[in-house]
Amino acid sequence: MQASIRVTLTPAVQYLLRIGDTALVLGQRIAEWTGHAPQLEEDIALANMALDLVGQSRAVLTYAGAVESAGHDEDDFAFLRDERDYRNVTLVELPRGDFAFTVLRNAMMGTFFRHLWDALRSSSDPELAAIAGKAVKEARYHQQHAADWMVRLGHGTDESRRRLTQAMADLWHYSAELFASDAIDEAAHASGLGPRWGDLKDAWMRDMGEILTASGIAMPAESKFLSTGKSGVHSEHMGFILAEMQYLQRAYPGGVW
Amino acid sequence: MQASIRVTLTPAVQYLLRIGDTALVLGQRIAEWTGHAPQLEEDIALANMALDLVGQSRAVLTYAGAVESAGHDEDDFAFLRDERDYRNVTLVELPRGDFAFTVLRNAMMGTFFRHLWDALRSSSDPELAAIAGKAVKEARYHQQHAADWMVRLGHGTDESRRRLTQAMADLWHYSAELFASDAIDEAAHASGLGPRWGDLKDAWMRDMGEILTASGIAMPAESKFLSTGKSGVHSEHMGFILAEMQYLQRAYPGGVW
Repeated sequence: MQASIRVTLTPAVQYLLRIGDTALVLGQRIAEWTGHAPQLEEDIALANMALDLVGQSRAVLTYAGAVESAGHDEDDFAFLRDERDYRNVTLVELPRGDFAFTVLRNAMMGTFFRHLWDALRSSSDPELAAIAGKAVKEARYHQQHAADWMVRLGHGTDESRRRLTQAMADLWHYSAELFASDAIDEAAHASGLGPRWGDLKDAWMRDMGEILTASGIAMPAESKFLSTGKSGVHSEHMGFILAEMQYLQRAYPGGVW
Repeated sequence: MQASIRVTLTPAVQYLLRIGDTALVLGQRIAEWTGHAPQLEEDIALANMALDLVGQSRAVLTYAGAVESAGHDEDDFAFLRDERDYRNVTLVELPRGDFAFTVLRNAMMGTFFRHLWDALRSSSDPELAAIAGKAVKEARYHQQHAADWMVRLGHGTDESRRRLTQAMADLWHYSAELFASDAIDEAAHASGLGPRWGDLKDAWMRDMGEILTASGIAMPAESKFLSTGKSGVHSEHMGFILAEMQYLQRAYPGGVW
């Protein structure tokens, strides 16, 4: 079995891992729908989104390797870290749930990524700005696609409305983590690498408010719950994701398995 | 629970279902790799292939609905048939296996589809010919990509060579079904809808022979085994695929679940 890599977790590297890991894990969860979506058209749309997200992750993790300057490539980052070194938000590691759950999570994350990438286009680092310039177009589509489904589910049948309401109860409180700025954010802000994630909250709340209003779903009150995936403290689901992801690389070091 | 649709299984409809179902089920099996491939680059390549295949399937199943003229759309076909009415070859329904298994199956099916779509470009039906014109480009890439991996695995480590050899032992004899022409093929040939699949065998054997030679893997002798998925008699794996695929449509008829 191949050992884990030891990542030099500078603030800049952590900031990039939060982006790359969040996109990677969300991409996997969305890809789980292939062949199982309610319509072939939706199947294809979800597969496209998964592909966009894994592609964004790959670009960011490659760049994180260059910033770390320890000889790690994107595959080392994707497949050979310990669980504590994955820095995705907890929201994206929750199991795929039903279709309403997926639609709501995609609306929340599509909206977040749209504003994050938009801000990252002004990064002081030209490479990250270039990645963002491509990714923001993809995120805009992801947000719009999920928002359209939100409206259909919210005004569909009693069952679709009940499920979307249940998804809100299950998911909404995980959004707080997205906007809990910390020292990593401050360092990125100070260097011009990227925005404090907390600075994206107003735009996110405005967009989500519009989507929820159009869907006829009430916005819940703020809760005190704060998940901790961004700091490497994950839910019980993360271990299962990594076990599957890392199996080939761990079992056949440096091989093509 | 929603009942199955009853498909009017004319020869032309069956011929189209064989194509659409084979692409659909292979697409699902390939998508199972998302997040689990040995490299992020390969992850993305496989997700792209899955997307191409589901897209091809959707186009063919939509067209099959028009040919059947019973008001069934591509989603009815994809999600509401009984197992016996799925007409994919057995090869594609086998579980994804290890990476060598997937690479070999993709080489076999990429080569097959490349020649099938190439022939279908001359279909007497302009709609099918148009679908084929786009699909043949995708299949050419799938074939080339899998062939490149075959060479890497065949000349990689002892372990990769051992696994590829094992995959040959497991998979090769399923190829016979691809070329077992029957009355459905004769009807398609007679009407100009498409080639007898058996007529593609020489080109397939030539291509696969080149790929195997380049990979340093021997071509097995022909066996008498003949799988029967094209006639709707499937392996024990098909039920599990359908159970997952059909759950939403069956449980919430006509809904978005």
